[in-house]
Amino acid sequence: MTNTSIITIGDELLIGQVIDTNSAWMAQELNKAGIRVKRRVAVGDMADEIREALDQESVHADIILITGGLGPTADDITKPLLCDYFNGKLIVNEEALLNVKYLFEQVFKRALTDRNLRQAEVPDNCIVIPNKRGSAPGMWFEREGKIFVSMPGVPYEMKGMMEDDVIPSLIKRFSFPHIAHRTLVTFGVGESMIADMILDFETNLPAHIKLAYLPNYGMVRLRLTSSGTNADIVEKDINTYFSALQLLTQAFMITDKDEPMEQVLGHLLLQKNKTMCTAESCTGGYIAHLITSVPGSSAFYNGSVISYSYKAKEELLNVQEKTLLNKGAVSEEVVLEMVKGALNNVASDYAIAVSGIMGPNGGTPDKPVGTVWVAVGNNTKQVTRKFHFRFDRQRNIQLTAMNALNLLREFVIAD
Amino acid sequence: MTNTSIITIGDELLIGQVIDTNSAWMAQELNKAGIRVKRRVAVGDMADEIREALDQESVHADIILITGGLGPTADDITKPLLCDYFNGKLIVNEEALLNVKYLFEQVFKRALTDRNLRQAEVPDNCIVIPNKRGSAPGMWFEREGKIFVSMPGVPYEMKGMMEDDVIPSLIKRFSFPHIAHRTLVTFGVGESMIADMILDFETNLPAHIKLAYLPNYGMVRLRLTSSGTNADIVEKDINTYFSALQLLTQAFMITDKDEPMEQVLGHLLLQKNKTMCTAESCTGGYIAHLITSVPGSSAFYNGSVISYSYKAKEELLNVQEKTLLNKGAVSEEVVLEMVKGALNNVASDYAIAVSGIMGPNGGTPDKPVGTVWVAVGNNTKQVTRKFHFRFDRQRNIQLTAMNALNLLREFVIAD
Repeated sequence: MTNTSIITIGDELLIGQVIDTNSAWMAQELNKAGIRVKRRVAVGDMADEIREALDQESVHADIILITGGLGPTADDITKPLLCDYFNGKLIVNEEALLNVKYLFEQVFKRALTDRNLRQAEVPDNCIVIPNKRGSAPGMWFEREGKIFVSMPGVPYEMKGMMEDDVIPSLIKRFSFPHIAHRTLVTFGVGESMIADMILDFETNLPAHIKLAYLPNYGMVRLRLTSSGTNADIVEKDINTYFSALQLLTQAFMITDKDEPMEQVLGHLLLQKNKTMCTAESCTGGYIAHLITSVPGSSAFYNGSVISYSYKAKEELLNVQEKTLLNKGAVSEEVVLEMVKGALNNVASDYAIAVSGIMGPNGGTPDKPVGTVWVAVGNNTKQVTRKFHFRFDRQRNIQLTAMNALNLLREFVIAD
Repeated sequence: MTNTSIITIGDELLIGQVIDTNSAWMAQELNKAGIRVKRRVAVGDMADEIREALDQESVHADIILITGGLGPTADDITKPLLCDYFNGKLIVNEEALLNVKYLFEQVFKRALTDRNLRQAEVPDNCIVIPNKRGSAPGMWFEREGKIFVSMPGVPYEMKGMMEDDVIPSLIKRFSFPHIAHRTLVTFGVGESMIADMILDFETNLPAHIKLAYLPNYGMVRLRLTSSGTNADIVEKDINTYFSALQLLTQAFMITDKDEPMEQVLGHLLLQKNKTMCTAESCTGGYIAHLITSVPGSSAFYNGSVISYSYKAKEELLNVQEKTLLNKGAVSEEVVLEMVKGALNNVASDYAIAVSGIMGPNGGTPDKPVGTVWVAVGNNTKQVTRKFHFRFDRQRNIQLTAMNALNLLREFVIAD
């Protein structure tokens, strides 16, 4: 079995200043191509530690993919280090030089410095991988049957290289097993409960099929994975088991794809040829952001009013001043007026309205932090629900969004 | 020097189904406490690979922090594996048992299954770390002077344990060096240009002070790190160098703290006792979400209109139908009407309006994907700017948000 290790280089990863989204993306794309990722390692900008990681990961894996440390500044040491590690010397690569000049003169429209020109130098013993989106070229080394590929840490530059060059070249080189994943998503049930619900199924799974539980924000994603050499058998096999899993979990399943709640709701609305809008107070645009992150969402989503102030609630959603004063902004009455105001002013078939206290401040004895009112509905009927979350601001915002979207999903299905 | 390794366990990390935010948070908190993270490793739910990682990381590090694999389902193998690795046997922990019962009966209000009860079992040779936020207790093992701590992968459970128990216990046990970080953020200048601007400064930095460049969305964060045994000297030292760095970069510096753009703008508005609002089309609530993620943002932020449809632009922002028809939604005229509409209807001192084409679809020959118009201003003056981004939807949304926030930041400073 061919194994891959991903090495991410950068002090920023070890002091937590950035979140490593690169290796998740890389792992996803590699898996789709049947390339198994065995380990992921992050090390700092220190020569000894990078060398140690290169030595060690080449014991674990056949393919070592490296990102980071290729920038033009002094803390970027990956290129000279790899050059030395593979006993090469730096030479100017003409194609990379043309690319750097083109980028600075035509795209960035910034003065080209010596530092930028040095981006075009590469070890003489690597295959150069062109970088169409930035100035640092990628490098492909081979030693003792192991492949080492170094790419920039800038996500969209790395992604371009992986898609255009690295993955196609790896596929040509190796014969990877076929890997198939199928995922379904449940809402409103804990993972223990699901485990009991599907106990026999899970116990009797054959060895080459794995089941994973991924709980998050009231949802549990259940993922089946199968692998083998014959693609047809692998696909047929996983579909059989996946159908059985769907049947067992259907009472809680919101989708049989690995897709987020906002996309489930979007598909449902498109299917029914309906539109929606939102009126958000405490989630401050997060629900709108989730929905509009989906390409093509303008086909079912008309917009939102983010009413942080009383005035915005009154002016844009026609919430009555006396309701705000008598009931408070976090109340069933206010979210009902908000949802009606949104339906009317953003002119949609369905609407969601939320108002709550996300913390860390703003709680009162009768309305503690985590109190949320949600209303969903259409012009003829509205449904409300009160929630009590007990987490930090970020998690409260996310849980509110998920529950509000799910409430509308249920409403649309029943409608 | 005491070194720490973080081991994250879970197949989902190796197929890229989730992004590992845990280790970034852990690294950040550990660093604040002077605890150096040397490596981060992610491995799958496979006993051999977990054992191998435990063996190997205990060579690299003195403290091994482990997250993941403590759930109640069959793919969670960390607890029995650690029990076996340290030659213990599983026994019921009374405190953990009470906690599980309390959580299910009082908090989750769900039926308690055998599976949940088994969460209260722990190896008899570990120190149990209570989990106040979930059912799986943490475990603290020691062997040959090395410390191994296992925590759940659920972020808010792990965070609670780290803050309440793990970090305080580590600080008691070791004497860590004092580590100081100072970060400033620039906007609108590339890292090569900065590197040339501060060449002498960087070349002459003493060995115990490190400089890192962290570019992202038009910003570059410059981080100085110093360490030593005497906290006073470390602090004095870093402040001296940081002041010099500030002077050298002041033309582009937007803040001398490690804080996001939305927080920089928020502080500026609070200082001037002013408020703002937004009118977002193409960013679909992302700017509002960024601003409202900052606790206390309601003191300067009144709300937003997310006008995805023409109707929402007309009804909620008083954009004229003829402007939309003659100029198109992505035009200077429309963002100017949007910014005025927002100022009027969301009643604020300043407003931002954005309209653009984020992709992947919706581009035309004269307005390709990535075309964005931004307007910022107050009731007496407005400024507009056109941008051409050339990335994917997500990055275009983020770049639009950053540039729009920066445009208002400059406007407010000049006002």
